Amino acid sequence: MSDIEIAQHASMQPIIGLAKKQYGIDAEHLDPYGHYKAKLSLEYVASLADKPDGKLILVTAISPTPAGEGKTTTTVGLGDALNRLGKKAIMCLREPSLGPCFGVKGGAAGGGYSQVVPMEDINLHFTGDFHAIGVAHNLLAALIDNHIHHGNALDIDPRRIQWKRVVDMNDRALRSIVVGMGGAANGYLREDGYDIVVASEVMAILCLATSRSDLKVRLGKIVIGYKSDKITPVYASDLQAQGAMAALLKDAIKPNLVQTLENNIAIIHGGPFANIAHGCNTVTATKTALKIADYVVTEAGFGADLGAEKFIDIKCRMADLKPSAVVLVATIRALKFHGGVNKEDLNLENVAAVEKGFQNLERHYNNITQHYGLPCVVCVNHFTFDTEAELALLEAKCKVLGANCVISKHWAEGGAGAQSLAQEIITVVDNRAPGCTFVYDDNISAWDKIETIATKLYGAAGISANAKIKAQLKVWDENYGKFPVCIAKTQMSFSTNPALKGAPSGHTLEISEVRLANGAGFIVAVAGDMMTMPGLPKQPAAERIDIDDTGKITGLF
Amino acid sequence: MSDIEIAQHASMQPIIGLAKKQYGIDAEHLDPYGHYKAKLSLEYVASLADKPDGKLILVTAISPTPAGEGKTTTTVGLGDALNRLGKKAIMCLREPSLGPCFGVKGGAAGGGYSQVVPMEDINLHFTGDFHAIGVAHNLLAALIDNHIHHGNALDIDPRRIQWKRVVDMNDRALRSIVVGMGGAANGYLREDGYDIVVASEVMAILCLATSRSDLKVRLGKIVIGYKSDKITPVYASDLQAQGAMAALLKDAIKPNLVQTLENNIAIIHGGPFANIAHGCNTVTATKTALKIADYVVTEAGFGADLGAEKFIDIKCRMADLKPSAVVLVATIRALKFHGGVNKEDLNLENVAAVEKGFQNLERHYNNITQHYGLPCVVCVNHFTFDTEAELALLEAKCKVLGANCVISKHWAEGGAGAQSLAQEIITVVDNRAPGCTFVYDDNISAWDKIETIATKLYGAAGISANAKIKAQLKVWDENYGKFPVCIAKTQMSFSTNPALKGAPSGHTLEISEVRLANGAGFIVAVAGDMMTMPGLPKQPAAERIDIDDTGKITGLF
Repeated sequence: MSDIEIAQHASMQPIIGLAKKQYGIDAEHLDPYGHYKAKLSLEYVASLADKPDGKLILVTAISPTPAGEGKTTTTVGLGDALNRLGKKAIMCLREPSLGPCFGVKGGAAGGGYSQVVPMEDINLHFTGDFHAIGVAHNLLAALIDNHIHHGNALDIDPRRIQWKRVVDMNDRALRSIVVGMGGAANGYLREDGYDIVVASEVMAILCLATSRSDLKVRLGKIVIGYKSDKITPVYASDLQAQGAMAALLKDAIKPNLVQTLENNIAIIHGGPFANIAHGCNTVTATKTALKIADYVVTEAGFGADLGAEKFIDIKCRMADLKPSAVVLVATIRALKFHGGVNKEDLNLENVAAVEKGFQNLERHYNNITQHYGLPCVVCVNHFTFDTEAELALLEAKCKVLGANCVISKHWAEGGAGAQSLAQEIITVVDNRAPGCTFVYDDNISAWDKIETIATKLYGAAGISANAKIKAQLKVWDENYGKFPVCIAKTQMSFSTNPALKGAPSGHTLEISEVRLANGAGFIVAVAGDMMTMPGLPKQPAAERIDIDDTGKITGLF
Repeated sequence: MSDIEIAQHASMQPIIGLAKKQYGIDAEHLDPYGHYKAKLSLEYVASLADKPDGKLILVTAISPTPAGEGKTTTTVGLGDALNRLGKKAIMCLREPSLGPCFGVKGGAAGGGYSQVVPMEDINLHFTGDFHAIGVAHNLLAALIDNHIHHGNALDIDPRRIQWKRVVDMNDRALRSIVVGMGGAANGYLREDGYDIVVASEVMAILCLATSRSDLKVRLGKIVIGYKSDKITPVYASDLQAQGAMAALLKDAIKPNLVQTLENNIAIIHGGPFANIAHGCNTVTATKTALKIADYVVTEAGFGADLGAEKFIDIKCRMADLKPSAVVLVATIRALKFHGGVNKEDLNLENVAAVEKGFQNLERHYNNITQHYGLPCVVCVNHFTFDTEAELALLEAKCKVLGANCVISKHWAEGGAGAQSLAQEIITVVDNRAPGCTFVYDDNISAWDKIETIATKLYGAAGISANAKIKAQLKVWDENYGKFPVCIAKTQMSFSTNPALKGAPSGHTLEISEVRLANGAGFIVAVAGDMMTMPGLPKQPAAERIDIDDTGKITGLF
């Protein structure tokens, strides 16, 4: 059965009753969205402040193949397994982006027998959070052009506006556009472009905000561009945009409750890109889950060089979160991919390629244990085509590395298939005090932060950038010195070259652009070609998606 | 108190219980969206098929001032008054568009003590229908550019694509744009533009569709542009877009239930523009309401020349609806406006101007009674500044015309203020068989349909168009001969010149453009300058909108 077929066979329980049964949450604290989705009130969230925190477990992955390694699937499987072992465990996930549903990737609510449901709703619109983020973003964009049209009292340089527009759709034709054509009634002609909603700074802000007032302050701090002197920033607050933007986010700020196929509660909230943003679900969701559950399993986007680093250095640092362990998801397929095997041949046995590709896993493992200061359990997300010999080799290599390695069959078996993993995680987290180390110190310069990440984690010899970028970072050091950095690079490699698989060393990380995300509170350093608006493939998944007269959806997978 | 303050003082009842209490609708047929909004299942809608229909009452208006004459307010007030008189009455309204909230107009959920609530939710996102429509529209746009990018097997002429993109935001900079800049990876450079979501043909289609399968068929029929031979249409179904678009609309197709300040059920569903589309809530909502209530009060956009004509000639004709009466809303302010008074002086007594402006009301009244074949009650939506002398003059003029005229104070008093109006309506509709006449016959040419509307209703001497437009209409007559026409002109005047107030005669209606809305099933004839993407004013309402830490919104009015 396909993912959607499995999901449609799920025996869901009404979410209001389930939240009461599992965590004692009364109906009055929940806003239902249909019978199987609900938002938790911020008043309830606030009421939990004095409760002790559960243990926080991060699920990350080795450098992924284009299909992904199954972080969400593993997060769900591990959460279900912990519940099977009698533990109170909640999963915290990112909301899927709508655009990719119509392209190649399909849905993003787990897979096989480790999914969150209702799958169609979660993938299509969900509770409207991303739409609200998109409108809040585009309201600010409209206010900018409107301000210039009506006299530009703020002296915004139309050539230095850095606030693009967003849409939750893979639409390459919108990457680079000209707006304001058609004469004076339509404003000023200028270059502009669209990003996908997950790349919006509003998304990053929503995911880091700790209250409505913090949200509003952060929205007001957004730098939309510069004045004609080229250096004076113009803030969203100069346009008095933050109140209306926060009003549009009035419900989006509330965490969403759904359930797994095994009727365990999961929170799905926020979903920033893991390249130009930090790639984790909201701080509100994570903190709430830690108050109501004893174990919280969460995920971060892309591989551990991107998502996990930002989870630690941006999210945990800002929100004072103390993780207890990391699950590093790997697949035999991905290891073979890193060992040089073509995409088409990944289902054929190739022990030598697994051995060769292992260096990718090894570097991620060492980064996690040495530089993030966290215990790491390697989880092999088992595929049907994996052979005994390949798995045995991987286990042996992990043993040499000193890594606990668990072969996990949650995709095929649900929580039952991940019980060894869950048992291992319980042992690890119950026997240490929570907490991690950061990769770099708050007080060093932005340049040094980037260099530290590149040399410590990526195996780079150093970093480079042109004089203009270096000068820009120095200017920002003065005003935004404490900001962490958010490196935007390909997820396919430790380097900026997607073709450099395994564990490349000695390369130079060339920074091609830097952006100030002043509302989110970090500096983005772009290394290599970075796509913030995907395109659709020649045969888009949209062509296969259908709905029948009863409302049953097919082709979403 | 402002509208939002009144709304925030409302004593709302949980919508699930209210629907059960008032209409016996069981909870299982409702998808809650929070506690005060719910969607009705299509299965429930289908189960009502064999029940008898209630009476359908249309609320329309004279040619409006920029502030509007209060159709929604009157619809709500009349519905509440009917309920006060012991009748089972439901109101069917259009969903407000998000964009105007941040501009001049503010919210669109009624006013004063005749509102639907929760007001903030209804104005901001509501149940996500417009977002779903926007995404479905933009998916098709992305599929078009993607198809051309990947080889253009359908031979779409990139210069003849008529499917623009949409956003629910007043954003003039997007009216006319160039997409596909930045080189080959970003597709083909071409001119494009954005309309506001309410102008999307997907909106018109959703509002006319009678089932999921009808929706899908209509979506597939959309003409997105033409092949390089200039005349062969390319349909959305050629891109296999209709299934995914319908899947995105899976919940948007379900009618939304809310309540009035007086705790009576209202259905708010769909909201197409009343110029380039037909300006009425969904057929599904109207038909459902007719099955569960004895009286259904609904509204159509802009004045009776636009909204009411399309309600009759497009919606009632297509859906076989039989209205029983029309309420023609007028204000003393608007009559003075039509009598030549400047906007700033509308609150000053001016009996002569009321008398002069009465010709506008008179023509609308005659159109309704003579050309739509419906009884018409004139409702004066009372304002604080109206004087006795002005009201007396208006009543006297109505008497001469033979029109029933009721001064109604629902804005200030809620349903209690509209009981005379309600009593009058009951008398009228209970004493005639439902049904109306159409302005033109199905079988005449599109040109003749336009001419009939212009000469019969607008007082025009005739219509004109260039040879290309005439030829285009003739081509369409062959393939789409039965289609009604949808005239897009200013709502400010019977003519195409907004400055020609009152009841201009002898003018020529110049058709500047014609568009085929093949999915919706009508031909749009554009007369005069037609804006399908509004702009924001110099001091946008967005600057005043705010939300506090408890989630309370202010400045939305």
